[in-house]
Amino acid sequence: MAQKPSIPKGTRDFSPTEVNKRNYIFDTIKRHFQVFGFQPIETPSFENSETLLGKYGEEGDRLIFKILNSGDFLGKVDDVTYSSKNSNSLAPKITEKALRYDLTVPFARYVVMHQNEIDFPFKRYQIQPVWRADRPQKGRFREFYQCDADVVGANSLLQEVELVQLYDAVFTDLKLKGVHIKLNNRKILVGIAEIIGAKHLLVDFTVALDKLDKIGEEGVKKEMLEKGISESSIAKAAPLFSLSGSSAEQLNILKGLLQDSEQGLEGIVELEFIMDTVKETGLRSAQLSLDVTLARGLNYYTGTILEVGAPEGVKMGSIGGGGRYDDLTGIFGLKDVSGVGISFGLDRIYLVLEELDLFPQTLEQSIEVLCLNFGEKEALASLRLIGTLRESGIKTDLYPINTKIQKQFKYANNRNVPYVILIGEKELVEHTFVVKNMASGDQKTFSLDSVEDFIAAL
Amino acid sequence: MAQKPSIPKGTRDFSPTEVNKRNYIFDTIKRHFQVFGFQPIETPSFENSETLLGKYGEEGDRLIFKILNSGDFLGKVDDVTYSSKNSNSLAPKITEKALRYDLTVPFARYVVMHQNEIDFPFKRYQIQPVWRADRPQKGRFREFYQCDADVVGANSLLQEVELVQLYDAVFTDLKLKGVHIKLNNRKILVGIAEIIGAKHLLVDFTVALDKLDKIGEEGVKKEMLEKGISESSIAKAAPLFSLSGSSAEQLNILKGLLQDSEQGLEGIVELEFIMDTVKETGLRSAQLSLDVTLARGLNYYTGTILEVGAPEGVKMGSIGGGGRYDDLTGIFGLKDVSGVGISFGLDRIYLVLEELDLFPQTLEQSIEVLCLNFGEKEALASLRLIGTLRESGIKTDLYPINTKIQKQFKYANNRNVPYVILIGEKELVEHTFVVKNMASGDQKTFSLDSVEDFIAAL
Repeated sequence: MAQKPSIPKGTRDFSPTEVNKRNYIFDTIKRHFQVFGFQPIETPSFENSETLLGKYGEEGDRLIFKILNSGDFLGKVDDVTYSSKNSNSLAPKITEKALRYDLTVPFARYVVMHQNEIDFPFKRYQIQPVWRADRPQKGRFREFYQCDADVVGANSLLQEVELVQLYDAVFTDLKLKGVHIKLNNRKILVGIAEIIGAKHLLVDFTVALDKLDKIGEEGVKKEMLEKGISESSIAKAAPLFSLSGSSAEQLNILKGLLQDSEQGLEGIVELEFIMDTVKETGLRSAQLSLDVTLARGLNYYTGTILEVGAPEGVKMGSIGGGGRYDDLTGIFGLKDVSGVGISFGLDRIYLVLEELDLFPQTLEQSIEVLCLNFGEKEALASLRLIGTLRESGIKTDLYPINTKIQKQFKYANNRNVPYVILIGEKELVEHTFVVKNMASGDQKTFSLDSVEDFIAAL
Repeated sequence: MAQKPSIPKGTRDFSPTEVNKRNYIFDTIKRHFQVFGFQPIETPSFENSETLLGKYGEEGDRLIFKILNSGDFLGKVDDVTYSSKNSNSLAPKITEKALRYDLTVPFARYVVMHQNEIDFPFKRYQIQPVWRADRPQKGRFREFYQCDADVVGANSLLQEVELVQLYDAVFTDLKLKGVHIKLNNRKILVGIAEIIGAKHLLVDFTVALDKLDKIGEEGVKKEMLEKGISESSIAKAAPLFSLSGSSAEQLNILKGLLQDSEQGLEGIVELEFIMDTVKETGLRSAQLSLDVTLARGLNYYTGTILEVGAPEGVKMGSIGGGGRYDDLTGIFGLKDVSGVGISFGLDRIYLVLEELDLFPQTLEQSIEVLCLNFGEKEALASLRLIGTLRESGIKTDLYPINTKIQKQFKYANNRNVPYVILIGEKELVEHTFVVKNMASGDQKTFSLDSVEDFIAAL
């Protein structure tokens, strides 16, 4: 019996219009990646399990999709393990490969494996799907694309400057003006935790601070208390809650707060250099500001932390983010390779462009010209004309069957075709073709001997 | 401890140059798909197991990668099944999803699920990876891309004509001239089997005939005998072994052989129509011919069968193939949807282009301009210049650190950079920049106020 087909939860089919819109975003990002000197790599969809497991914390390990070994996968399982009937002990015996969870660990693996072929500093970009066994919900999928650009093998804050410019270039080109690029530095967060006497609770402190936007000052203080940060520590952190004014003014307040923390001051110097240099070179449409509550991926980033927010008025989490990490490849045995990178959130950017109606209209137009089909001889003449149009790069199609003309016109309408060509009996005799502009309804006749006139008119 | 990283057998990392070369092929194919009116879709990397299993025969089922259920996957397994410790019985209890094995079954599933949103005839293309647990060997991978274009929902041999033209357009554009497009029709094969009295052994007959190239007439006859085809049947098939001359001459011989087979003659009419129409409209560089031994995917195709061979002198299996199938979507409950499609063999096309040195040289050039780094102030001036160049779409990079100039030049050489820009102390004062042509060694000085002169010179 035929099955009623479905797809796994958390996955998606993409229709032609959706693919075109997604590719519009991908292509824009890719073009700027290349213009900024990044080079593409691709890695396999699945990696050896040991490459991935243990790299994303316990929660991450749980979310990694494991691939069942092929053939008699139970053959090699010892009876003791098997008889315990325990999923956690059996899994490593019957799976050796796992689907990519992000692009960063495979990139680190790539750099280590290919270190002798790579010219450092290596600027790479990678746009590929990743998979996570997360509970699917609105806007969260089990298969989604990541778009990453990273520079490894050189320590220079100019790279952060370039990454800010890259965000600006991409979002300006996508006509998404006024995105907010927020900047922070892990060293500043460490400095603050140090100064208030909560260095041992750095993660709890920053996780709580990160929620200032959502739960407000009182909420943050409450959470800090619950996590064991003392009242006096929280009191010392008070200036953070009332930071306001320009980034320069905020930096001044922070300088005061952090005057006794070497690391904190280092973070401020780094941040100031980036902000000053970006100011000198200018941004096309994005806004850059300091956000001392920004803490994303704290356990991972060691210097700059950055995040992009949608323009004012659009409700959406971050549409991009990144930062600097001092030791990307250490897990695979290559020490002291510093890196800095950013990532674009494709699905969210898609939603924002949709909401603001920023996709070019032409993306919904799959062909420019449709030739109607009036019969075998007419179709043959059309095919010749179509050949010429296609050689000129014009997206052209022939309606494949000689059916009712009404039905063919309806098809042209459904496919948003701007021009329909008619070659009927009369045109065949006169060696001409009629072009109908579907928007205006105008018709114009051209000679089959001077197709270039029509091409020029397009 | 750090692991020595590796990737699963049968998978590949792609370096920047490899990705660029692969994208050159993908982009060329994609451009022509679009110009021919095909629209892109994408489907999830994994499907529900029941969507895939049973669709590719027993051998196919074995080669499908299954994804282990997440969490406590043994929790739902009954003790009877578990205690048998049998891989085949346990697998369906602990896996629900499987990696895509090809693009055709997911496409059929897509058409059925989205039939109400699709305007038929539907011309779709799809370029995505597929996975097979095949034994890896030279040129055979466990992860590889398929590039498919299919038309569903209309019965017209004009579609076959267009697909031949599409092959011609793509390979001509890839500068791969003289590919051989071979044409056959399942109905001709059925007709022959009928005429020689071996209709019940159609598959054995055609599988053997398919090997004529490799094992010769005697080998084919021997295999047919072994498969139970009688001496007298084989004798009747004799004309097939000596088919020669033009396609028209061969068609004449076949017409004689098949005069009593209605189906066989129908196949000949179809084949003649395609060949005649292609002749009328012309091909740019490919050669089209009849190959009655062609039988690929026999159990699947119901009419036209086609295959593309590399140009004379290149040893390589087929670099593309396809055909017509009458019932694509029946397995998912939608009857009478006829389809016809072709596929491009990316990995083999890559090898052929490599062998014939047909990749454009620019693919190995990741950036056009590299600015050397002489220090903080100089770098800042460079950054402004770089911003202007990038806005003009010129791939430009700044060497991120102020290190020895020799080292920076070496990096420029390794990255095949054609132009290096130098802004040193002197240039900073004079407000100029020096451009060095890396091929000729020539140097030229431009004013920082008229960057457009340099852009024009590029």
